[in-house]
Amino acid sequence: MHQVERVQDLTEDELLERVVPLLPASAARVLGPGDDAAVVAAPDGRFVVTTDVLVEDRHFRRAWGSGADVGWRAVMQNLADVAAMGARPTAIVTSLVLPGDLEVAWVEDFAHGMAQACRIHAVGAEGGDLSGGPVVMVSVTAHGDLEGRAPVLRDGARPGARICHAGRLGWSAAGLAVLEAGFTSDDHLEAEARDAVGRFLRPRPPVAAGLRAAEAGVEAMMDVSDGLLRDAGRMARASGVVLDLSSQAIAADVAALEALAHACGQDALSWVLTGGEDHGLLAVVEGEVPEGFRQIGTVRAGEPAVTVDGGPPSVLGSGWDHFSGR
Amino acid sequence: MHQVERVQDLTEDELLERVVPLLPASAARVLGPGDDAAVVAAPDGRFVVTTDVLVEDRHFRRAWGSGADVGWRAVMQNLADVAAMGARPTAIVTSLVLPGDLEVAWVEDFAHGMAQACRIHAVGAEGGDLSGGPVVMVSVTAHGDLEGRAPVLRDGARPGARICHAGRLGWSAAGLAVLEAGFTSDDHLEAEARDAVGRFLRPRPPVAAGLRAAEAGVEAMMDVSDGLLRDAGRMARASGVVLDLSSQAIAADVAALEALAHACGQDALSWVLTGGEDHGLLAVVEGEVPEGFRQIGTVRAGEPAVTVDGGPPSVLGSGWDHFSGR
Repeated sequence: MHQVERVQDLTEDELLERVVPLLPASAARVLGPGDDAAVVAAPDGRFVVTTDVLVEDRHFRRAWGSGADVGWRAVMQNLADVAAMGARPTAIVTSLVLPGDLEVAWVEDFAHGMAQACRIHAVGAEGGDLSGGPVVMVSVTAHGDLEGRAPVLRDGARPGARICHAGRLGWSAAGLAVLEAGFTSDDHLEAEARDAVGRFLRPRPPVAAGLRAAEAGVEAMMDVSDGLLRDAGRMARASGVVLDLSSQAIAADVAALEALAHACGQDALSWVLTGGEDHGLLAVVEGEVPEGFRQIGTVRAGEPAVTVDGGPPSVLGSGWDHFSGR
Repeated sequence: MHQVERVQDLTEDELLERVVPLLPASAARVLGPGDDAAVVAAPDGRFVVTTDVLVEDRHFRRAWGSGADVGWRAVMQNLADVAAMGARPTAIVTSLVLPGDLEVAWVEDFAHGMAQACRIHAVGAEGGDLSGGPVVMVSVTAHGDLEGRAPVLRDGARPGARICHAGRLGWSAAGLAVLEAGFTSDDHLEAEARDAVGRFLRPRPPVAAGLRAAEAGVEAMMDVSDGLLRDAGRMARASGVVLDLSSQAIAADVAALEALAHACGQDALSWVLTGGEDHGLLAVVEGEVPEGFRQIGTVRAGEPAVTVDGGPPSVLGSGWDHFSGR
């Protein structure tokens, strides 16, 4: 009789032997996994570092997608933060917490998803730690190389500059709503629904566009992970300015999600303005709009705030909070 | 009436405002927390990186100690891995998963413990991520500076060289046994029991001794986190040698734990040979025993194995496994 192989059937070393060979190296690898620590190149004498965690039943449900989806997302959400500094992602390390009754096949699939996401951006998986626990938890720490440039911060937005965005707005929130509604059947919406679910499960941060923007000398940049209004608010406070968004500039984003929002009984404008986890890049530039970005507003002088067409945004809430939901 | 403040009463930003100011910077900080990522100096163009996770009810119980103990241990177990490469620890980032009903005071205490551990070794806490989840989970990623040296690996042990150790053996396992037995009352053993519990809750890896050993040109080095036999076995396999330990050299370690082991109904030799989480350093050196280390055996030629006085160790088991307990 066929027996499903579970995490608790293997020792930690046995599980590592299954997973580690699936993960790619990068050009930045000096010493890979297998010793107490890895060694990574930092050619300009500095490295960018960021960490983000995914928790089962908080950020994902296993029933919503594959292990590969979770591995992909854990990598990509971190690469977005590296790119938002204007750095080229080089290497990740991963802490993975697994319930004992989890199928080993899920873990291998997870590693494949991590590897796919890493390979797209020539990033190496250079080490990690495995432990048991009550739910799946994935903490990825990602590193990047500024290639001699200054990091691009959130505090560089000055009045008169263009507010630009690369990536999609609201699609991840739409995908989450589709999954939460168990919605799969309406033929008219099938393509959008599938697209939205894909955007939620497998975000594609515009890493290359972020690097080009940094090379072009963009004044401020950040990852949009908690919703446009909430993250723009952080940039507004850091820079001491008003970020005034244009409803016309985001009208097409809203229109593209209208049918899906209607089917889910939700509001497309709210998805676009407050939906999290899209992992696009918000940039402020005094010169030309960088390649891969589009202008969505203008920086104004004033008490730090985010406005739409000069007034308060017409949606409730300002994005996702991990603890209180406020 | 006094109300206990819990994690779920605060937004993520509010909780960060409580915790981040408690954490120290280091000389390696180029850009600290607050943007999408931190920037850390890597003066010789490389950095060492390692990650380790602590999971509530798997690695610790909240009832056994304070939040500060957990924060301390999460830092120190990672600094041990950095030191084991012969690198000077410089910076950590932390992913912290917290149940909503956890007291905010515990989290602040946790941050104090992290800060204490960081300050002892002049390490900066340069960023992190917070999320909700069913139990406390702490994933720390630590970085180090090789200061121009080659990393000290596990594969450099050659026949005839001395096997050396810095730090205690078995005390963390003894402390765990004391906590699991609920043992607090025997006056005769009080000092040892208290010491052992302290060693479990607040490991003190010999970071400075590891750095000196690396500077002196030690041939191989590793952190002892899963028990001496198990970790020495890894070094034996990596180097293709026999690590022959001397029972005489560890007799004093065993003797120091005899009374406590008797009181707990356990075996002191097993604690010394297989107890995990002591975070001492195992080194192999062809020349002088490095400062802060003592010799505990000799490397021999042969099929990779760990022996005691030339024969198989007289204890069952080879150390801790996170999944199967094997």
